Amino acid sequence: MMTKDQYIESLRKLNLNLWMFGKKIENPVDDPVIRPSLNSFAATYELAEDPQYEDLMTATSHITGKKINRFTHMHQSTDDLIKKVKMQRLLGQKTAACFQRCVGMDAMNAVFSSTYEIDEACGTKYHENFVKFLTRVQDEDLAVDGAMTDVKGDRGLAPSKQADPDLFLHVVERTPEGVYVTGAKAHQTGFVNSHEVLVMPTIAMREGDEDYAISFAIPTDSEGITLIYGRQSCDTRKLEEYNDIDVGNKVYGGHEVLVIFDHVFVPNDRIFLNGEVKFAGMIVERFAGYHRQSYGGCKVGVGDVLIGATALSVDMAGCAKASHVKDKLIEMVHLNETLYCCGIACSSQGSKTKSGNYLIDLLLANVCKQNVTRFPYDIARLAQDLAGGAMVTLPSEADFRHPELHAYIDKYFKGVASVSTEDRMRVLRLIENMTMGTAAVGYLPESMHGAGSPQAQRIMISRQCNMEMKKELAKKIARID
Amino acid sequence: MMTKDQYIESLRKLNLNLWMFGKKIENPVDDPVIRPSLNSFAATYELAEDPQYEDLMTATSHITGKKINRFTHMHQSTDDLIKKVKMQRLLGQKTAACFQRCVGMDAMNAVFSSTYEIDEACGTKYHENFVKFLTRVQDEDLAVDGAMTDVKGDRGLAPSKQADPDLFLHVVERTPEGVYVTGAKAHQTGFVNSHEVLVMPTIAMREGDEDYAISFAIPTDSEGITLIYGRQSCDTRKLEEYNDIDVGNKVYGGHEVLVIFDHVFVPNDRIFLNGEVKFAGMIVERFAGYHRQSYGGCKVGVGDVLIGATALSVDMAGCAKASHVKDKLIEMVHLNETLYCCGIACSSQGSKTKSGNYLIDLLLANVCKQNVTRFPYDIARLAQDLAGGAMVTLPSEADFRHPELHAYIDKYFKGVASVSTEDRMRVLRLIENMTMGTAAVGYLPESMHGAGSPQAQRIMISRQCNMEMKKELAKKIARID
Amino acid sequence: MMTKDQYIESLRKLNLNLWMFGKKIENPVDDPVIRPSLNSFAATYELAEDPQYEDLMTATSHITGKKINRFTHMHQSTDDLIKKVKMQRLLGQKTAACFQRCVGMDAMNAVFSSTYEIDEACGTKYHENFVKFLTRVQDEDLAVDGAMTDVKGDRGLAPSKQADPDLFLHVVERTPEGVYVTGAKAHQTGFVNSHEVLVMPTIAMREGDEDYAISFAIPTDSEGITLIYGRQSCDTRKLEEYNDIDVGNKVYGGHEVLVIFDHVFVPNDRIFLNGEVKFAGMIVERFAGYHRQSYGGCKVGVGDVLIGATALSVDMAGCAKASHVKDKLIEMVHLNETLYCCGIACSSQGSKTKSGNYLIDLLLANVCKQNVTRFPYDIARLAQDLAGGAMVTLPSEADFRHPELHAYIDKYFKGVASVSTEDRMRVLRLIENMTMGTAAVGYLPESMHGAGSPQAQRIMISRQCNMEMKKELAKKIARID
Amino acid sequence: MMTKDQYIESLRKLNLNLWMFGKKIENPVDDPVIRPSLNSFAATYELAEDPQYEDLMTATSHITGKKINRFTHMHQSTDDLIKKVKMQRLLGQKTAACFQRCVGMDAMNAVFSSTYEIDEACGTKYHENFVKFLTRVQDEDLAVDGAMTDVKGDRGLAPSKQADPDLFLHVVERTPEGVYVTGAKAHQTGFVNSHEVLVMPTIAMREGDEDYAISFAIPTDSEGITLIYGRQSCDTRKLEEYNDIDVGNKVYGGHEVLVIFDHVFVPNDRIFLNGEVKFAGMIVERFAGYHRQSYGGCKVGVGDVLIGATALSVDMAGCAKASHVKDKLIEMVHLNETLYCCGIACSSQGSKTKSGNYLIDLLLANVCKQNVTRFPYDIARLAQDLAGGAMVTLPSEADFRHPELHAYIDKYFKGVASVSTEDRMRVLRLIENMTMGTAAVGYLPESMHGAGSPQAQRIMISRQCNMEMKKELAKKIARID
Repeated sequence: MMTKDQYIESLRKLNLNLWMFGKKIENPVDDPVIRPSLNSFAATYELAEDPQYEDLMTATSHITGKKINRFTHMHQSTDDLIKKVKMQRLLGQKTAACFQRCVGMDAMNAVFSSTYEIDEACGTKYHENFVKFLTRVQDEDLAVDGAMTDVKGDRGLAPSKQADPDLFLHVVERTPEGVYVTGAKAHQTGFVNSHEVLVMPTIAMREGDEDYAISFAIPTDSEGITLIYGRQSCDTRKLEEYNDIDVGNKVYGGHEVLVIFDHVFVPNDRIFLNGEVKFAGMIVERFAGYHRQSYGGCKVGVGDVLIGATALSVDMAGCAKASHVKDKLIEMVHLNETLYCCGIACSSQGSKTKSGNYLIDLLLANVCKQNVTRFPYDIARLAQDLAGGAMVTLPSEADFRHPELHAYIDKYFKGVASVSTEDRMRVLRLIENMTMGTAAVGYLPESMHGAGSPQAQRIMISRQCNMEMKKELAKKIARID
Repeated sequence: MMTKDQYIESLRKLNLNLWMFGKKIENPVDDPVIRPSLNSFAATYELAEDPQYEDLMTATSHITGKKINRFTHMHQSTDDLIKKVKMQRLLGQKTAACFQRCVGMDAMNAVFSSTYEIDEACGTKYHENFVKFLTRVQDEDLAVDGAMTDVKGDRGLAPSKQADPDLFLHVVERTPEGVYVTGAKAHQTGFVNSHEVLVMPTIAMREGDEDYAISFAIPTDSEGITLIYGRQSCDTRKLEEYNDIDVGNKVYGGHEVLVIFDHVFVPNDRIFLNGEVKFAGMIVERFAGYHRQSYGGCKVGVGDVLIGATALSVDMAGCAKASHVKDKLIEMVHLNETLYCCGIACSSQGSKTKSGNYLIDLLLANVCKQNVTRFPYDIARLAQDLAGGAMVTLPSEADFRHPELHAYIDKYFKGVASVSTEDRMRVLRLIENMTMGTAAVGYLPESMHGAGSPQAQRIMISRQCNMEMKKELAKKIARID
Repeated sequence: MMTKDQYIESLRKLNLNLWMFGKKIENPVDDPVIRPSLNSFAATYELAEDPQYEDLMTATSHITGKKINRFTHMHQSTDDLIKKVKMQRLLGQKTAACFQRCVGMDAMNAVFSSTYEIDEACGTKYHENFVKFLTRVQDEDLAVDGAMTDVKGDRGLAPSKQADPDLFLHVVERTPEGVYVTGAKAHQTGFVNSHEVLVMPTIAMREGDEDYAISFAIPTDSEGITLIYGRQSCDTRKLEEYNDIDVGNKVYGGHEVLVIFDHVFVPNDRIFLNGEVKFAGMIVERFAGYHRQSYGGCKVGVGDVLIGATALSVDMAGCAKASHVKDKLIEMVHLNETLYCCGIACSSQGSKTKSGNYLIDLLLANVCKQNVTRFPYDIARLAQDLAGGAMVTLPSEADFRHPELHAYIDKYFKGVASVSTEDRMRVLRLIENMTMGTAAVGYLPESMHGAGSPQAQRIMISRQCNMEMKKELAKKIARID
Repeated sequence: MMTKDQYIESLRKLNLNLWMFGKKIENPVDDPVIRPSLNSFAATYELAEDPQYEDLMTATSHITGKKINRFTHMHQSTDDLIKKVKMQRLLGQKTAACFQRCVGMDAMNAVFSSTYEIDEACGTKYHENFVKFLTRVQDEDLAVDGAMTDVKGDRGLAPSKQADPDLFLHVVERTPEGVYVTGAKAHQTGFVNSHEVLVMPTIAMREGDEDYAISFAIPTDSEGITLIYGRQSCDTRKLEEYNDIDVGNKVYGGHEVLVIFDHVFVPNDRIFLNGEVKFAGMIVERFAGYHRQSYGGCKVGVGDVLIGATALSVDMAGCAKASHVKDKLIEMVHLNETLYCCGIACSSQGSKTKSGNYLIDLLLANVCKQNVTRFPYDIARLAQDLAGGAMVTLPSEADFRHPELHAYIDKYFKGVASVSTEDRMRVLRLIENMTMGTAAVGYLPESMHGAGSPQAQRIMISRQCNMEMKKELAKKIARID
């Protein structure tokens, strides 16, 4: 396995075509805006080095028998599924941000079992291709981005009906050695910090969509790929002269990029689906299922930090004993642990796929994510309630460091006598960061839309819930023949 | 194990001092008001006879190695805890009511581990007493009521400060052979259908409360016990001439009684706590924990029936395809499965006690029950939304059977042409039963108050949530030393 | 104006063809099941006699200049609309039930303005017919039922597509003197206590539906009308030997009946719409609008009683000072007053119709009712939370009055020392009545479905909200041309 | 009345001691960060010039009989109170931001009636002082900031118990000509755009707090006042080279400052309370009441823009016809209009004070604000749901304007063919602005805490709700003597 430092060095070797704020970024690793997201990703390597987290952070490869980072593991049991969730909660607690590596893990587990079944049905060799890729990922402890979401254009139209055919990524040329693809994947979390990208189709498909039914893995710096960095609320605070307090979370962050594929080559042995339209839906459903489980871990860990910060804020303001304050903190915990229950339950109720790895319970994983589209918003609202108005009216750190203003701010933003004003400001800025700033992007809209927008889960819940069985139960009780 | 029929016959031998509607009930087994609750309880025997449910309904005694009903089992693993929840969901699905036997199972598991630890600390022999009792329960497949909730009088006063000392059950006389107790246990679910009652203290206690710190098991028809049957919404519909449709659920039901102990004798070998005040809280906490888990199973099963009935009602009204109707059904499923997630999760994360049986995760079990105090109300509201107004304006069955009125009702309560009016009435009456009638008692207020009212869970969530750790996480992110 | 007693006597003269529990009811006025609903209706007469309520309960006829009961008044100002809401809150507070007379008031106001506009457009004389009818209603202070909801059959089919054409009320024969109608109106609130019924179409109509586009008023005991009484949760408690405590609300109640029209004659001068299909929607929309306003008054008054009862229950249990208890009572008030705000606001923003009477603001009235489909459920849930489990496990009054049991019940259901057990039982039974019993029918499912089910309001909100204007506002801010 | 331009020019004459980002701001009027807030404030002048808004934006002075800006008006009727709310909704619609002038209006109305009653009780001349001040404000159409919220320090301690006595503003020196005050007012909305500040005490007071019971008005640039600008989420986007799209709302904004009073002189004729401790609570309660009403206007107007922007975003993405999308837009409208109902209702039910101006209904105004602490969060969550993930992953405007990237972004962020990508970006950035950016400060945390945090309203609801009357109603129904 790579150490954190080896990982960071390995990224320096990538030759990404990355743009941000209208400029090409030659050195993303040391860019102050991007670096916090790298630090979060790097935590997945760092904690794997720490003996106290070995059980959660590492696993034994079912291919090679070697110890590997759990993020590259094919889950071999429901216990593995549960440990995945616990690992994610741990990393959320340590980073208070999106650590990005789940997407690849979830994509790999989905493609692993799907390729097995595609080969079984179609006589293809995708599983062999994939296992070869996977083995290298495990051996070299690579960071993999899973890329599913197409930009989609007009949501009312199918891929082939769009005004511009590239609004869904598709094969534009076929050669004996492989295929060329064009299109774009939106909202790509952690792409800049990844060595490889594993591309999947974005929706279930039907006959006629063959060129869109494509899955493959290639290096992130492959020729023809252009990246445009998504801007986040408060992103440029990281560029300010005083960038310690106001950023809220100085060390960790997340990022998302638009990934444009402009006639990009994919060699044959890196292809995992190529025109078998009826299996596109399987990959989507399984990836989404795993990723909806993931949110029952990572967001819970982030929630722990937000709850802790809120508890500190009321301690510092001297109102921790008010009954409504205690009650709101309990509600925050209650909601957060309900999410955790869902993450644990869909893992506990997982089952073995034909390929041998374990899939979560799809119904419960969708229930999990559906709750994630709701409760973090409630938790954030309660955090803003308890933190009080100062969270959004605090002066800047530059004011706080200014010789003429420091004493005023120090005096008038003081809470309880025993806590320094600076510490109080740090906590309030962290809450701002998590509910309105850069981390809010991950904690709120990403909780809403990541792994599929709420309506996507509702459709899955409807499909998976076995309503006919429930009707039979009711008929029996009502004594209807 | 007893068969369903043997169980019913065994109840005939009890000599209960039971009163209802101002009359002594000499034959509860065949009483039309009480019988449905017996049928629900009997289902715990009936399904254990059914090979297809063997894995869920039965277990192997860790004492005798014999096959026993799971309701008498000491959980030996987290897998046992999960099976318990699944068994409860199954029974909820089959009865659409409270089947009552969980209380005893939860009480026995709580007292089993607690007595072990009391003996360890105090040199008593309670665990031996308890194992002897338990062995008989397992061998004879007895029905056991767990009795915790005292009537409590003025909630603002401690047991010993009440105007009437009997408002909490307590020892009133001590002899070499045992003790005499006086007091009352309220809301006793399934007592009338039980052979034995296992009494526990109702709250944590302190020095001075020794007489109130008492736990024991005795036959339900012991001398000095008087039972007064609690009346339920719509209870007397079961007594009407036409008692088929309007009752909603003709076969199954639940009941609760006030159990009055008037100088009742308890022999020494049936005593499991006797004055060790500091362990009262342990029994309460563990019983409550197990019982809060239980609600993540049974109420989910009942919810399945209500969802199924609601789906039937919209099919029958011809509006199943309306998007808002579909969406509300999805929401009902989502809420119900969220409860199930909580039941599964607190089981999956259980751990071994010193005595060897398994205890659920207390934090998650309390989170589970807290959600149970909310979501069934939402599910019931959505059921009433979709069922439409006819649910509360339907004519009586007597009208429907009346020669002059039948044709009118048959004509004007018709929904879609393919479904008989009678079947539609049956479904609507079932929904009425579950949201306003006898079953609503179990599905709504009992979800609220059974196993502890909502505030009790909030206190436990507060105690169990490790807020200090969360504060440390936040301090680290905010870089406060 | 009639006195309460005159009103009751006047009902004795009606010759209703009424059935309940399979029997013809010859004397509804003195029937113990029906009488509480009459008492509620009678309160609209009784309070009008009371000088302290004169301003709310009475008005000046714009036709005759005479003092009339406000329930027969055509609203002449927004102030009248507000007084209507306040009158309804008052009556809800006094009866804790549905007092039934609003339907007629709302129907009359809707038909008054609609007939004016129909005549203007079509050259008909419906307004003249209606004013003549109205003048008699005002002069004789008659009780009028407004009948809109058809039984509807298959909700997926239009009136004329139903398997049975009578599933929507329609004209089946036309003569020079009038028309004959057949069909049924469901969920008719207060019909049994009314002198006249004002029938309206149930939905907007189109060409081809001419026979269904019919509105008229006739005596409730007209030949060919059959009534079947809807049964309510706990209705037969009123028939028990001890019918004082367990009924919860002994004096007041509500009722709903199925009204069957079997070839019923309507004379020409009582017809207010007859085939002008494009005006059916206007009557529906206006009646629904007025009636959705009404719920912002009456349910608030009923809510006041439920909140008061809940506050008493916690006083009596000795837990009124617990912070969570106080907070839940505040929440109940908050929700209840939010409903009141909606009732007041849609009245305050009303406007004059062409006919001269005032119409509420339709958008806000629909918002009002939409909240009424939600908040009473929350209020009832909080009431059950605070009331505690005893509400559903109390023994019957027969037990309480039994010489052998009285002392036990008196002793063990005692709360704080200063309150009698009987009073505590009375309060708990009232809460049961309002959340699960006969009054719950009015407070919960009727709040859901009365004046239109929730989806009906959502459609109206969508139509009335002027989304295009909001888009323009956003475009301007975003500086999109 | 001043024109918009005169108002802006008048601000140039102020000599404010204002700091931001560690620098003294010499020219706030033209500062790019501050200017949008000035533009919002200026809209209160601009719309008053527009004849189509004359009825809402202007009023007739009850002192001079002259036409004045409604923001300086003492409400003379409930109709005035309603027009106030409508004016605020209008301005919210036009600015999508906080236009700041309400605070002064609400403060002036509260101090007007309170001083009258203080004088009546204490024989003081505060009302005369105040009317003189008010007359000048009306005549010169001045902008007035109302300053209530002290920084408060340790919330668990009373003013006089704080470690630092200045944590609540207080009199530090008394001279024959007036008093000197020291302290700070936090979260001062619009101070920088105001000519005068009207200071009020922050809480009810008791004997011993005389020095803290102080109310007065002085120019905002009085000697000894220092202002520190509060930083907002995304504030520096306004300073970027491309500051057109990413700011979301280029023209309008809000601001809040910390106002430090360091030994500031107040002349006698500008004092409106000076030691009469028992009247501090009256001023607080009335100001809070008026300001809680205000939120039922301004936030509704802002909500209109957010709803409109969300509707545009789904039009542009091609998913406006999906039933769940339509339903969520309806829910947003429903919630927004519920807030409006509360604003209208507390106005409609207002009453005349002894001084002659009108006060809102205090119970309903607190209910109004309580809902404002909830629904904007729900509306914002739904906006983020419908807007989709692009809202937080869009590239920067600098990227969009970059020649090498423009075509890519234009191609891949395209929604429906008929709408330009730039327009789609504008709408998404507006939604970001309102839910996470600078405007979110006003729409979310300010909705939570402005005019008092949620718990403050709950306390007032508890005090105002007349629970004893509700208990009496319940007793009567339950027939308890």
